[in-house]
Amino acid sequence: MPTTLGQNQYGKAENRVVRITRDGATHHIKDLNVSVALSGDMEEVHYSGSNASVLPTDTTKNTVYAFAKEHGIESAEQFGIHLARHFVTSQEPIRRARIRIEEYAWERIGTPGEGEHSFVRKGQETRLAQITFDGEEWEVVSGLKDLTVMNSTDSEFRGFVKDGYTTLQETRDRVLATSVSGRWRFNWTGDGQRTPDWDTSYEEIRKHLLQAFAETYSRSLQQTMYHMGARIIDHRDEIDEVRFSLPNSHHFLVDLEPFGLKNDTADGAVYFASDRPYGLIEATILRDGCEARIPVDLTNL
Amino acid sequence: MPTTLGQNQYGKAENRVVRITRDGATHHIKDLNVSVALSGDMEEVHYSGSNASVLPTDTTKNTVYAFAKEHGIESAEQFGIHLARHFVTSQEPIRRARIRIEEYAWERIGTPGEGEHSFVRKGQETRLAQITFDGEEWEVVSGLKDLTVMNSTDSEFRGFVKDGYTTLQETRDRVLATSVSGRWRFNWTGDGQRTPDWDTSYEEIRKHLLQAFAETYSRSLQQTMYHMGARIIDHRDEIDEVRFSLPNSHHFLVDLEPFGLKNDTADGAVYFASDRPYGLIEATILRDGCEARIPVDLTNL
Amino acid sequence: MPTTLGQNQYGKAENRVVRITRDGATHHIKDLNVSVALSGDMEEVHYSGSNASVLPTDTTKNTVYAFAKEHGIESAEQFGIHLARHFVTSQEPIRRARIRIEEYAWERIGTPGEGEHSFVRKGQETRLAQITFDGEEWEVVSGLKDLTVMNSTDSEFRGFVKDGYTTLQETRDRVLATSVSGRWRFNWTGDGQRTPDWDTSYEEIRKHLLQAFAETYSRSLQQTMYHMGARIIDHRDEIDEVRFSLPNSHHFLVDLEPFGLKNDTADGAVYFASDRPYGLIEATILRDGCEARIPVDLTNL
Amino acid sequence: MPTTLGQNQYGKAENRVVRITRDGATHHIKDLNVSVALSGDMEEVHYSGSNASVLPTDTTKNTVYAFAKEHGIESAEQFGIHLARHFVTSQEPIRRARIRIEEYAWERIGTPGEGEHSFVRKGQETRLAQITFDGEEWEVVSGLKDLTVMNSTDSEFRGFVKDGYTTLQETRDRVLATSVSGRWRFNWTGDGQRTPDWDTSYEEIRKHLLQAFAETYSRSLQQTMYHMGARIIDHRDEIDEVRFSLPNSHHFLVDLEPFGLKNDTADGAVYFASDRPYGLIEATILRDGCEARIPVDLTNL
Repeated sequence: MPTTLGQNQYGKAENRVVRITRDGATHHIKDLNVSVALSGDMEEVHYSGSNASVLPTDTTKNTVYAFAKEHGIESAEQFGIHLARHFVTSQEPIRRARIRIEEYAWERIGTPGEGEHSFVRKGQETRLAQITFDGEEWEVVSGLKDLTVMNSTDSEFRGFVKDGYTTLQETRDRVLATSVSGRWRFNWTGDGQRTPDWDTSYEEIRKHLLQAFAETYSRSLQQTMYHMGARIIDHRDEIDEVRFSLPNSHHFLVDLEPFGLKNDTADGAVYFASDRPYGLIEATILRDGCEARIPVDLTNL
Repeated sequence: MPTTLGQNQYGKAENRVVRITRDGATHHIKDLNVSVALSGDMEEVHYSGSNASVLPTDTTKNTVYAFAKEHGIESAEQFGIHLARHFVTSQEPIRRARIRIEEYAWERIGTPGEGEHSFVRKGQETRLAQITFDGEEWEVVSGLKDLTVMNSTDSEFRGFVKDGYTTLQETRDRVLATSVSGRWRFNWTGDGQRTPDWDTSYEEIRKHLLQAFAETYSRSLQQTMYHMGARIIDHRDEIDEVRFSLPNSHHFLVDLEPFGLKNDTADGAVYFASDRPYGLIEATILRDGCEARIPVDLTNL
Repeated sequence: MPTTLGQNQYGKAENRVVRITRDGATHHIKDLNVSVALSGDMEEVHYSGSNASVLPTDTTKNTVYAFAKEHGIESAEQFGIHLARHFVTSQEPIRRARIRIEEYAWERIGTPGEGEHSFVRKGQETRLAQITFDGEEWEVVSGLKDLTVMNSTDSEFRGFVKDGYTTLQETRDRVLATSVSGRWRFNWTGDGQRTPDWDTSYEEIRKHLLQAFAETYSRSLQQTMYHMGARIIDHRDEIDEVRFSLPNSHHFLVDLEPFGLKNDTADGAVYFASDRPYGLIEATILRDGCEARIPVDLTNL
Repeated sequence: MPTTLGQNQYGKAENRVVRITRDGATHHIKDLNVSVALSGDMEEVHYSGSNASVLPTDTTKNTVYAFAKEHGIESAEQFGIHLARHFVTSQEPIRRARIRIEEYAWERIGTPGEGEHSFVRKGQETRLAQITFDGEEWEVVSGLKDLTVMNSTDSEFRGFVKDGYTTLQETRDRVLATSVSGRWRFNWTGDGQRTPDWDTSYEEIRKHLLQAFAETYSRSLQQTMYHMGARIIDHRDEIDEVRFSLPNSHHFLVDLEPFGLKNDTADGAVYFASDRPYGLIEATILRDGCEARIPVDLTNL
C-alpha cells in the first residue's frame, strides 16, 4: 500500500471522576474530567488490526479511577503526572502519554452549626491541565476556558487601516468583552526540579490575568491580551509561555434616534450583545529567549 | 376549511440587552435576554395572511431596547412589567403579553485604587422571570436554572418497591447531586397591591432553597425537593407556588475490587459522575388553599 | 406545615436504547432515547421520604431495556404504549405513565455485493413521540424537531401595524426560513379503536408539512404555519390537533452599497443569516369541534 | 519588558453568509460560515496598541459579504482562495491569511409542477475547508465533521494487552460506531498547477471514506480508520495526507440475565448507547514520501 502511518494516539476520553475526602464531618470535593492519549509502537494495529501492543482504552479508564483511589488527587497536574508516568513506564510499546484534565470548582453552602458536606458548583471558568511525558521529559501546560469578562469603559479603537471595504467608525469609548481561553506552559520539565505548587500557581495566574485585563487602558484587544500574558510571565517565574484565544464579544450601542432617544456611552447606555460574527484575537506571549510549544489552535471551528 | 385556530402567540425572542449605568467612576451592569410573546385578535393573519393586526416582531425588539433606555432596568421583573403593560395597552388587537427574561450576574474584578468598571461573569445559575398581563391581571413567575448542588453524605435510598425488573441495591449513604431548575409564583396580581422587592425576594429564595437542600437528611430526592419548596413558602409570604424539575445526577461508586481496592463511602471514595440516563424528579409545592398555575413542563425533551 | 403537594412525577429520563434485528445478513436499526415519567399516590415520599410506594427510577430503566428485548420495537409509539400499560397496570400506586421518545433515523451505506450492516445517521429532524396512559384513556402525541427549511422567494411581509417604535420596511420578496418544531395529537384513545399505522402516519405528515411550507405563497409566517397544520388535518383522519413553534430565522440582505454593489433579491443575492434575536411564531391548529390538549410551550427558554 | 510576541493572528470569525442564485424559477443555495485569520507585522498593536497596521475585523467581515456578491461562491475552497489572496496581496503588513469555512448542505423539497425555491437542510455532516496563503504557497485542507456511522457487526476486539487494571472481555462481535471528524490535505500548492474540482473531490472522498468504513472487517477501530485514510489516498491523486479523530461510541450489550432474558449479538440484540467516557482514536495517514502538515489536534477538549 502506498501509504504510511503518521502521528497517532488513542485512549479513553472524558472519564468523569469525583473524589470525596472526609476530614471528620468536613468533606472536600475533587471533580475532574480526565482524558488519556497514548502513543508508541502502534503500526501493527493500524495496518493489520493486531492488538498485541494495545492496552485497551477501557484499561486506561480503570487506571484513572484506581489511581484516584490509591494515590488521591492532590491537584489536577499532580494527578496527571502520576497517570502519565504509569502508562509510559509500565507498558513497553507506549512511548508517550498525554493526560488532559478539566476541573470544576465547588464552594460550600454555608449552613449554621452543621457538618460541611453541602456544595454548590462555582460554575465560572473551567480549569485545564495537560501533562505530557515521553519517558524523559515532562511538559505541563495549564489553563482555563469560559472566563467571561467585561470592561464597561477605558477601551477605544482608532487609527486603524482603512481600505475600500472599511465602514467602521473610530471610537474613543466602547465596551470590551471577551470569554478568556488561555494556556500557560511551566518551565518544569522533570522530577529533578523543584515542583511548582500547582494550585497556588493557578490562583495567582488567574488573579494576574484578571487584573491585567481590568487595569489596561485598551487601544485594541491585542494590546490588552499581550499585557495579560506579559503580566503572568513577569510575576510567575514558573511560566515561560502563554497562549490566548480571545473572542471580541461585540456590544453594539443601539441606534435609538428613530425613537427620539440619544444613546451614547454616557450614563445609561444600552447595548446589543451580539453572538456572531465576532472578532477572534490570538497570540503567544513568550519569556525572552524561550521557545513556543503550545499549539496555535486552542479552539477549532 | 374544517380547521380552526387555537392558542397562538408571536413576538421577538432572545433580545440580548446590556445596560450600563454610571455612578461617577463606578459602573453597574444589567445583562438580560428578553423574549416577547403577544396574543390577541390574530385570526386573519393565520387564515389569509393579512397583517393588519400585526405589530411586527421587529417593533417588539425595538421597544425592548428603547424601554431599557427610557425607563432603565430596575429589576428583570419590573422591566417585564413595563413592557407587558405597554404592549397590551397601546395596541387594540393585543390582549395578552408574556415577557420572559433570563438574567446573567456579574461581579467586580477587584483592583487597587482604580475606578470600578471591570467585571467577571458570575457564571453560576441563570435567573429567570416571566411576566404575563391580560389587561386586568398580572402573573409573575420567577426562578432559576443550572444551579448545580451536591450533598456528599446524609442521603440514603431504601425501602422502595421491588418488582421483577428491580436490581438496585438499597443504600444508607450516597451522593445526592442535582442541577436545580425552579420556578416560583408571586401572589402579586396587580398594580393596586404592594409590589414585592423583586431582587431581595430572589436572593432570599435562593438562600432558602440552598439551605433546605443542605440541611435535609434525605431519604429520597422527592423529600428533599418538597422541603426546598416548603421552606420557600414558609419564609416568603409573597410566594404561593413553587415548581421544581430536578435531575438526579447519579454518582456511582466505582467497583475497584478487581484491582484489590476497597471503595466504599468512607474517606476517599471515588465516584463515576454519569451523564445519561438520569432520574428526573418534578413536583409543584403549594401554599395551602392556593391553586397551581405554573406549567408542569419546565424542561421539554 | 402550611403547604401541599401538587402535580408530581418521576422516572428515568433519556435511556438510550439501540436494537438491531437481523434478517439474514441484512440488519435493521432502531435508535431511541426513552424517558419515563410516573405519577400516582406519591404523597408520602414527598412528605416523609418513605419510599414504600416508589418503584425506583433504576427499575424503570431496566424495564425499558428488557421490553426492547422481549417485545421488540415496532415503532416508537407502539413501544411507548407497551411501557405505559405495563407501569400503570403492574403497580398499584402508579396511576399515570408518560413515555417520551426521541428517534434517530439511519440510512444504509450502499456497498456493492456485501451484507447490509453498515449505516450512516440521517441527521435531519428528530422524530418525537409521547404516550400517556391513566389506566383508562390513551393520548398519543407525535412530532418532530430541528427540521430546517427555507423558501428563497414567494414570501412577503407588508401591511402591518406601525407604531412609534416601528422602523421595519415592507418587503415583497424575502427569504423565509425556520426550524420546525411540531407536535400532532392522534384521536386514537384506546385499545378498542383501530390502531393507526404509526410509521406511515409519520412519513405522510412529514411530507404534507414540507409540501405546505413549499407551496404556500407567504404573506406572513403565521399564514404558512396555519396552512402546514391545516394540510395535515385535511389529509390525515387520525390527527385532530397540531401545534407548531417556529422561529423566524432571519436572513438579512447585506447592505453592500458602500462598496458600490447593488444587493437586491435578484440573482445572486447575499444574506446574513442571523442567530439572535429571532421571531417566534406559535399556534395550535384544530380539527373543527376538537379540543386543544397539546401544551402551549413546546420550547422553554 | 522581558517578554516577546510569538505567533499571533486576528480576524472576524463565523461570518454566516447565504447566497441564492436564480436560474429562472430554479434557485440554488450556498450556505457558509466563514472565519478569517490574518497575521503579519503586528508587533506594535500588541506592544503599544497602535492600530496603524491593523485592518479592522469589521472590514474582513465586509469583504466576505462583498466578495460573495462580486465573485459568487463557486465552492467553499474557491471562495476561500479568493479571500486569502485578496488579504495578502492588498495590505502590506498582512503576510498570511487563513480562511476557514463550514458549509451546510440543502436538498430540494419536491413539489409537483412548481418552481424550485424550497429547501430542507440535509443536516448530516458539516463540510469543512481551510485555505492558507502566505503570498507564495497555498495550502488547502478540506474535511468534514459530525458524520455518524455504525457497523452492526463484522467488528471484533481481542488479542490486546492485559495488565493489572484490565477487566475488559474479548469480543468477536460488537457494534462499531463513531462520529467521523476528518481532514485531508490537497497537494495543490499554487495557481500554476491544475486546480482540483473541489466539489467532485469532496463527494468522492466522502464516498470512499464511507465505503472503507463499511467494507473493512474490523479488528480494531485503528485498523478501520487507517483503511479509510488509505482508501482516500489510493483513489484520489489530489490528496497527500488525511487526519482522523474518531470517538469510539460505545454500544454496550445490556445484561438482561436478571430478568431471565438472553441478550447476545444474535437477532434482536439490545444495546445501551453510552455518552462518556468514549475511546478516542486519532491518526495521520500519509502518501508515501509526503510530509505531515495537518495539526494533530482536530478536537480540543
